[in-house]
Amino acid sequence: MFNDPVPTVFQEMTWEEIAAAARADTPIVIPVGATEQHGYHLPVCTDWVLPERIVREAGRRRNLIVGPFLPFGYRSRPGSGGGQHFPGTVSLRATTFMSLIEDVLSELKRCGFRNIVLYNWHLENSGFVYEPAYLVSERNPELKIVVIEDVNPEFTPQRLNAVWPQDFPGLALEHAAVIETSLWLYHEPSAVRTDRIAADSPQRVVNHDVVPIDTRMSTTSGALSSPVPASAEKGRLLTEWLVERLITIVDDEFPDRTPI
Amino acid sequence: MFNDPVPTVFQEMTWEEIAAAARADTPIVIPVGATEQHGYHLPVCTDWVLPERIVREAGRRRNLIVGPFLPFGYRSRPGSGGGQHFPGTVSLRATTFMSLIEDVLSELKRCGFRNIVLYNWHLENSGFVYEPAYLVSERNPELKIVVIEDVNPEFTPQRLNAVWPQDFPGLALEHAAVIETSLWLYHEPSAVRTDRIAADSPQRVVNHDVVPIDTRMSTTSGALSSPVPASAEKGRLLTEWLVERLITIVDDEFPDRTPI
Amino acid sequence: MFNDPVPTVFQEMTWEEIAAAARADTPIVIPVGATEQHGYHLPVCTDWVLPERIVREAGRRRNLIVGPFLPFGYRSRPGSGGGQHFPGTVSLRATTFMSLIEDVLSELKRCGFRNIVLYNWHLENSGFVYEPAYLVSERNPELKIVVIEDVNPEFTPQRLNAVWPQDFPGLALEHAAVIETSLWLYHEPSAVRTDRIAADSPQRVVNHDVVPIDTRMSTTSGALSSPVPASAEKGRLLTEWLVERLITIVDDEFPDRTPI
Amino acid sequence: MFNDPVPTVFQEMTWEEIAAAARADTPIVIPVGATEQHGYHLPVCTDWVLPERIVREAGRRRNLIVGPFLPFGYRSRPGSGGGQHFPGTVSLRATTFMSLIEDVLSELKRCGFRNIVLYNWHLENSGFVYEPAYLVSERNPELKIVVIEDVNPEFTPQRLNAVWPQDFPGLALEHAAVIETSLWLYHEPSAVRTDRIAADSPQRVVNHDVVPIDTRMSTTSGALSSPVPASAEKGRLLTEWLVERLITIVDDEFPDRTPI
Amino acid sequence: MFNDPVPTVFQEMTWEEIAAAARADTPIVIPVGATEQHGYHLPVCTDWVLPERIVREAGRRRNLIVGPFLPFGYRSRPGSGGGQHFPGTVSLRATTFMSLIEDVLSELKRCGFRNIVLYNWHLENSGFVYEPAYLVSERNPELKIVVIEDVNPEFTPQRLNAVWPQDFPGLALEHAAVIETSLWLYHEPSAVRTDRIAADSPQRVVNHDVVPIDTRMSTTSGALSSPVPASAEKGRLLTEWLVERLITIVDDEFPDRTPI
Amino acid sequence: MFNDPVPTVFQEMTWEEIAAAARADTPIVIPVGATEQHGYHLPVCTDWVLPERIVREAGRRRNLIVGPFLPFGYRSRPGSGGGQHFPGTVSLRATTFMSLIEDVLSELKRCGFRNIVLYNWHLENSGFVYEPAYLVSERNPELKIVVIEDVNPEFTPQRLNAVWPQDFPGLALEHAAVIETSLWLYHEPSAVRTDRIAADSPQRVVNHDVVPIDTRMSTTSGALSSPVPASAEKGRLLTEWLVERLITIVDDEFPDRTPI
Repeated sequence: MFNDPVPTVFQEMTWEEIAAAARADTPIVIPVGATEQHGYHLPVCTDWVLPERIVREAGRRRNLIVGPFLPFGYRSRPGSGGGQHFPGTVSLRATTFMSLIEDVLSELKRCGFRNIVLYNWHLENSGFVYEPAYLVSERNPELKIVVIEDVNPEFTPQRLNAVWPQDFPGLALEHAAVIETSLWLYHEPSAVRTDRIAADSPQRVVNHDVVPIDTRMSTTSGALSSPVPASAEKGRLLTEWLVERLITIVDDEFPDRTPI
Repeated sequence: MFNDPVPTVFQEMTWEEIAAAARADTPIVIPVGATEQHGYHLPVCTDWVLPERIVREAGRRRNLIVGPFLPFGYRSRPGSGGGQHFPGTVSLRATTFMSLIEDVLSELKRCGFRNIVLYNWHLENSGFVYEPAYLVSERNPELKIVVIEDVNPEFTPQRLNAVWPQDFPGLALEHAAVIETSLWLYHEPSAVRTDRIAADSPQRVVNHDVVPIDTRMSTTSGALSSPVPASAEKGRLLTEWLVERLITIVDDEFPDRTPI
Repeated sequence: MFNDPVPTVFQEMTWEEIAAAARADTPIVIPVGATEQHGYHLPVCTDWVLPERIVREAGRRRNLIVGPFLPFGYRSRPGSGGGQHFPGTVSLRATTFMSLIEDVLSELKRCGFRNIVLYNWHLENSGFVYEPAYLVSERNPELKIVVIEDVNPEFTPQRLNAVWPQDFPGLALEHAAVIETSLWLYHEPSAVRTDRIAADSPQRVVNHDVVPIDTRMSTTSGALSSPVPASAEKGRLLTEWLVERLITIVDDEFPDRTPI
Repeated sequence: MFNDPVPTVFQEMTWEEIAAAARADTPIVIPVGATEQHGYHLPVCTDWVLPERIVREAGRRRNLIVGPFLPFGYRSRPGSGGGQHFPGTVSLRATTFMSLIEDVLSELKRCGFRNIVLYNWHLENSGFVYEPAYLVSERNPELKIVVIEDVNPEFTPQRLNAVWPQDFPGLALEHAAVIETSLWLYHEPSAVRTDRIAADSPQRVVNHDVVPIDTRMSTTSGALSSPVPASAEKGRLLTEWLVERLITIVDDEFPDRTPI
Repeated sequence: MFNDPVPTVFQEMTWEEIAAAARADTPIVIPVGATEQHGYHLPVCTDWVLPERIVREAGRRRNLIVGPFLPFGYRSRPGSGGGQHFPGTVSLRATTFMSLIEDVLSELKRCGFRNIVLYNWHLENSGFVYEPAYLVSERNPELKIVVIEDVNPEFTPQRLNAVWPQDFPGLALEHAAVIETSLWLYHEPSAVRTDRIAADSPQRVVNHDVVPIDTRMSTTSGALSSPVPASAEKGRLLTEWLVERLITIVDDEFPDRTPI
Repeated sequence: MFNDPVPTVFQEMTWEEIAAAARADTPIVIPVGATEQHGYHLPVCTDWVLPERIVREAGRRRNLIVGPFLPFGYRSRPGSGGGQHFPGTVSLRATTFMSLIEDVLSELKRCGFRNIVLYNWHLENSGFVYEPAYLVSERNPELKIVVIEDVNPEFTPQRLNAVWPQDFPGLALEHAAVIETSLWLYHEPSAVRTDRIAADSPQRVVNHDVVPIDTRMSTTSGALSSPVPASAEKGRLLTEWLVERLITIVDDEFPDRTPI
């Protein structure tokens, strides 16, 4: 922390620096995450640390502020995050999560920001990110809020082949698997318990949910497909694609504001 | 109404008939919808009438109760429902919508039902259907609640070809388009303003949202792709596939309860 | 459905038709009901279907829109609706019910309507209909919202004699009794289980409540007084009086808007 | 205050005295009121002071505790309380009012009370008193909660004649009129601005509401009918009838608990 | 009640008198209290009656209105109020308490008041008084709201010596002790069970909390330190100091409004 | 991150490691903070980073888990945090903040933890930390939750002299001043803009609040007293005292659980 030459990370800045950025109409990108089990080999902070790293990288290439990250998200669901039966997952009720985003947006508006991006890593947050953005927008139509609930880059056949040369389990099962493990290996390898990496897959894959949770829709380890093919080099590639998509959106939505 | 030989539609039954069905542990399937613009040619009730028809059809083939339908849903989003700027759309806040489902589930539990399915037609409701099911399940673990937030049947290549022989715009743009128009033409053709059917498509198709709404992500008519290829025969086919998927889930999740 | 020559039923209209009605400042009348047991012989949809029929009839005589009906209401109380111990009754908490009305009003305002009537059939909803109307009015003083929590027409001695020639049990006990049974017999006789019509009356009639529910304040059948004297002809008469009162209010409150 | 020989008023008792009363299963009667304009001649505390006096009087004749009074109520409506446009009226939102009662009931339960009466003076509170009682009862079925939302005694023809020998305007218009003025004259005459007593009546009497408020449904003074015929002697009579009804209910509902 | 020559007590005034005071921009001071155990010797109304008396006294010296008192407060904590395990304490949840204040402030604003003071006696209310004041201020920046969460006067060494000539236990333990007992002895001696006054002190005094409550942090009697040294004369002195501080604040914050 | 030999930081652990710690009944200490302006020279993350460092240090000496930190707090008040008028401060509404803590506690309980400490750095959070702890405790009396709303160590005369040898402004004004600046200088000196350190003090110091904010109760810089005397050595001393107090509490409250 505190090592970047130009201060662009909200939490590391002083109020004067933040006020100056807001006055300049700099876009601010809020990493939205979760505290959630990520298998035997990844820490529970995965869903908020990784998007924060991606946004920091984007901040090195474009004029934007890395907003205050949200370390808690909506409940984990078996088919996308393993499910609420795992210890280590610390989820919010829908109402709490939406109020939290609503307040952060209202306060950033008060700080003077007008160009805001919500950059969401945790799939289960979908919908619950849009609603508070909508509510704040109703009261503050002068803001422009961009809601990216699915941060995945376009996976062209070449890209699919580069990351999953053998068989692609589908993005739905990419929890604690190749993408996230590769990104950690690239950004912070000390976080990965490499000796605990092992293949896994759900016994039952369906497109509906059941409560109480049917644990056959999740896995024993918590990884929904195999993290074995992960590598730091893939993490570098994925970072490139993720950053590229984010800065494309920022350039498109705030055309006058992003040259660095 | 009131014409089915055996009473299976909750709203048309007396309390004694309902009590008997609950005592028999009959599964109950709740159509979850919305009141939302559906282009120049379809009525705003589309999202709650169509799933009600599908569940009624399933009720003719399996032992289940057509639960009380929910005619209001979460806010329409431009890329999936046209957006909140259309008159005719009557949406609920997320908190209202979730409370509504929570109460209906709690009351069905009080009525004695233990096997409940939430059958959701309106894509924007996703997440907001799961949360109240989860909350009610926490308090009533003896219930089994199945949450189908995406009712689409599997679209095999043959099926895709049968419905969209020319070019398939993608399910994301299937709002007030071929699927829904065909279903109306099959189930209630008088509801379709056939002279107002016309092709349309959004100027801008992206995988993120913006508030205030960027109307280029929606269309002028409110239909997100062309309803022109719709037909009653396709409506019959689609009904078959939808019903088949629903009864498969009901059979799988409540194996002892569904023979008619 | 969909058979009326001129579209006046919100749920059956397209968004363009709705937008035109709103632009013309047409009054919109929302049937507010409940899903509640109605004795051995009437379906649980009674409280939302009947007011919808009355408003439709009024729509044939005056220029108004039949608004989106609300099929769920506040909790049933023993002395007016039989009570929450009956299966088949699906009630909302007060907070949910009020939020639902608040959202529907806000959305109708967004659609462009300025003249709104809440037409409530379920006595227990009283107060809970007024509050959301008040809240929406505070934020939108340009709307005019008429709240009819008690839809009963004036029962003159002649009218009382026409409907209850023998003995009048009082309006308080008119649940699933002469009025509602007669209206069903007139509007949709197939909904009435005529073989299950039987007299009933509460063991205890008092002007206070007790929780947990004292079932002596309700009845075994759920009808609070005898439906035996009901007839289709009485249903026709009652429809006349109900429609007459509604259109009188609409004429008085929106004098420039109601000629058909 | 503090003058009663045996302590029976909750707010004037010590915690030990309260604990002893709760251990003895003594019924506790909570006066529920409002802070609301009461014409030119009565103070705004009318709706919570008067029921408190009635319950105190009942406490002299039966073994019961005068519970903590609630000095705030739900919004005033023109036809029953004059309406929210008067200064001096301090009303609660429905949600606040219901939460307040819910908390007071929960706390009395924690104190050990099992026999509770809600004694409501302010007509607009109806429904909003029942709901929190219901919610607390669901969680604490061992409590018995009696809800008296309408405290009026039976007005037999003789009684009507005794109070309104000339013409009876109807109970609906009895706001700041004969009943309340007489009760003040009997219990605390210094509270009445006798020189400001004057007849009044609404320009428009209907059985529906309008928001924004139609002030013709209220009056200039805030009294909805004439207080001129009020007298201390009528206040004594009314007190008798009110107390008699209350103790009858208490005797009926808690037969083993009320001998003094 | 009702004995003051000039009406200055909100609850005892008519709406016209209140309207006149508001039009004159008279400051209004709301006593904020609690219903809470106060040892063996004091009534549970202590926390709302005492501040009401102080504000009344201030009202005799300055031009201000004694606002509607709030008889319920936030939960009692062992170290400051004895704790929630005592019967007799009737506390509100934080959300209820804040909503109550929010509504009262909103209504006083509607009545026309612009200069409002919240005068809080119950230490546990701290924070929960500020929040609703903040929320109402956001919506009504034309109001000036003064929040006094700690009403204690400055305790100079002389004053400390006058009240606690022997040993001063600290203000933190001044619950149902010298200050409150002295004030009752001065203002309403009949409220004090003098025969039940006895020394007490907690077994454990720490600066953190534990839930479930550690009763060693409270006392058996509910008084947190000894009320034995209390006297009516000390009550007179304390009244002087409390009133002096209140009128100093009122003079400072509303300089043009307070001459009597 | 991720450098500690034994994993004790919740966010850096895998779910299996967390599950093991919970099974062993290890106490978990949650740093509760805020995102708030801290003068010209400190970053806005001060209030959540510093307590996290203190708890980490305690974790090196006792067997405890550093729980998931809360980076957002309740609104800043002028006299303790500078006030809500500063850009950079990102506060939550009281209701959001309490829901957030409630959810985190509920989830830690689900994870299996039974010994929980809330370690709060931001004074304005007081009360709002206790309430959610109370609510969760009511539902889960098997948990023991310790609430430290004021983390300050005892400041003996020697300690006061060591930190403020010249003049001590009082703890109330210790915002962005000697304590916090010294701690940063000791733990992460790169975070301090040393060239921006400058003395400051409020124009008006009172013991009440005013809304809208009276900025004279805060300062221009946001530091409420002078940070000039800060030093890394003082930061080391303060860390010792803070850690000592925390581990004393942990040892006292969980005597069987804390040997390392």
